[in-house]
Amino acid sequence: MLSGGVDSATALALAIEQGFVAYALSFRYGQRHGIEIEAARKVAAHLGVEAHAIQEIDLRLFGGSALTADIAVPKDRDPRAMASEIPVTYVPARNTIFLSFALAWAEVLEADAIFIGVNALDYSGYPDCRPDYIAAFEKLAALATKAGIEGRPVSIRTPLIDRTKAEILKMGADLGVDYGLTLSCYDPTPEGQACGRCDSCRLRRQGFAEAGLSDPTVYADLAEVT
Amino acid sequence: MLSGGVDSATALALAIEQGFVAYALSFRYGQRHGIEIEAARKVAAHLGVEAHAIQEIDLRLFGGSALTADIAVPKDRDPRAMASEIPVTYVPARNTIFLSFALAWAEVLEADAIFIGVNALDYSGYPDCRPDYIAAFEKLAALATKAGIEGRPVSIRTPLIDRTKAEILKMGADLGVDYGLTLSCYDPTPEGQACGRCDSCRLRRQGFAEAGLSDPTVYADLAEVT
Repeated sequence: MLSGGVDSATALALAIEQGFVAYALSFRYGQRHGIEIEAARKVAAHLGVEAHAIQEIDLRLFGGSALTADIAVPKDRDPRAMASEIPVTYVPARNTIFLSFALAWAEVLEADAIFIGVNALDYSGYPDCRPDYIAAFEKLAALATKAGIEGRPVSIRTPLIDRTKAEILKMGADLGVDYGLTLSCYDPTPEGQACGRCDSCRLRRQGFAEAGLSDPTVYADLAEVT
Repeated sequence: MLSGGVDSATALALAIEQGFVAYALSFRYGQRHGIEIEAARKVAAHLGVEAHAIQEIDLRLFGGSALTADIAVPKDRDPRAMASEIPVTYVPARNTIFLSFALAWAEVLEADAIFIGVNALDYSGYPDCRPDYIAAFEKLAALATKAGIEGRPVSIRTPLIDRTKAEILKMGADLGVDYGLTLSCYDPTPEGQACGRCDSCRLRRQGFAEAGLSDPTVYADLAEVT
């Protein structure tokens, strides 16, 4: 599952390093930052995938999130505040929807594993980024599919779930991931430039700083990361 | 969740009878019988829903089923054969995808329950129509959402899961469901006429016969139901 951001790009690089033949799946779901799909295309080509499918769905039909409705994206928040509450950028049931599509494709491909770049540290406010949620989805997947009931259940791999952003960036840099191709911003300019101030930009900037790596992103506006 | 067929129309009627304010959700997913969405619209208007959302997704992107790829729909099979194997009309992970979207909307609406007309008798060959699958999804839903982790998990209601088609039709008839508005066929003519010979048509015809009810459907071709 490839969003175009740092985490999923790193998860894809790890899957390939582990010897998997990778199929990338991205979603145009009505997100404010739909331009991230272009980043996903570049990352898929850069890392080398067997195929890249883009599923078009419409989560604006339901709304309920700053990413899929006319709700402002918070700016200049302390990144640590994300760990203690569910932010308005949470999209209801998004990971469940994404994993369900991945499960469908995995069943058709007879795939062994689904890699998802969820992270329970930075995004601990998101219910569907936690280990017990992932374990529940894996159990569901075993019951939901022909492969599962025939004894070949797909595994859900979350290699980044307990890593800090700095650790993730270091792992990816060691694998040669070009983070200049990725886009993290929730609220980019129409030209696709990162805002520099949303939660996702701030986590990214803080991560590069902590990792001692140079951030290739050109941000539109740089409020100080506290 | 409203497909336009007999089971989901009956499940909707039962939900309304139980006092729920109903929101109907249908999917245009690239199914061969996409015309079933028109039946769903008629059923939603007939039974009276608060809103009817139609989610457009593309399961042809993955294929793997007679309903979403160029694989022939089986005809003239003994309906009982469906109970012993997973038929080619099985769509990988379809109910998981559908339930995931329903979960998203339920979270935004703060809904108490999701009604799904799955049936483990007629469709026992489908892994995602069984009680243990539904129980696993309900557990996942409690972990996946803000409402769930705050102690207001959505329940998944399957009022038809252990009913025969004849029982379902009798329940619906008692509630005034107009089955003339529904479409069951997997392989209708371009004009929307039911084929009469696919598994779904045969189960429907057999159900009306066993219930002693008159089937309002005009079938294109009537091979004998054995």
